[in-house]
Amino acid sequence: MKASIIITPKKAVLDPQGKTVQGALEHLGYQGVRDVRVGKYLEVELSGVDAETARQQLEAACHRFLSNPVIEDYRLELHD
Amino acid sequence: MKASIIITPKKAVLDPQGKTVQGALEHLGYQGVRDVRVGKYLEVELSGVDAETARQQLEAACHRFLSNPVIEDYRLELHD
Repeated sequence: MKASIIITPKKAVLDPQGKTVQGALEHLGYQGVRDVRVGKYLEVELSGVDAETARQQLEAACHRFLSNPVIEDYRLELHD
Repeated sequence: MKASIIITPKKAVLDPQGKTVQGALEHLGYQGVRDVRVGKYLEVELSGVDAETARQQLEAACHRFLSNPVIEDYRLELHD
């Protein structure tokens, strides 16, 4: 089983890395770039656990350890 | 228009950040974690360009600037 986790800075939080990428894209001539946010992407491969357990375990891991819930949001998706 | 870009290390490339997360998850008692890969996630908001132009521009930006095609793969998705 595979899980994808996307961790992004919350909307209200300043994202200097995103701003840097946005500035660089504009500088390189790419037009119409209104906003860029940079986050993390994690791909987790699991075996020997059922989907429900995996989801619970990963939700807990995202909240406790993989993301910082004060300044980041996460999205968790499970695939077979 | 919104674009999501996921940049991951290629399969053949060692991913020390992923290995560290995997080790930490095991250490914290999460079972069945076979592999973890860590990548980047970018969310780009565009305006004033049509989908085809946006895709071409972002494909070029991913290849030239946002990813390192020697060691990384990228996936680009456009949403309205």
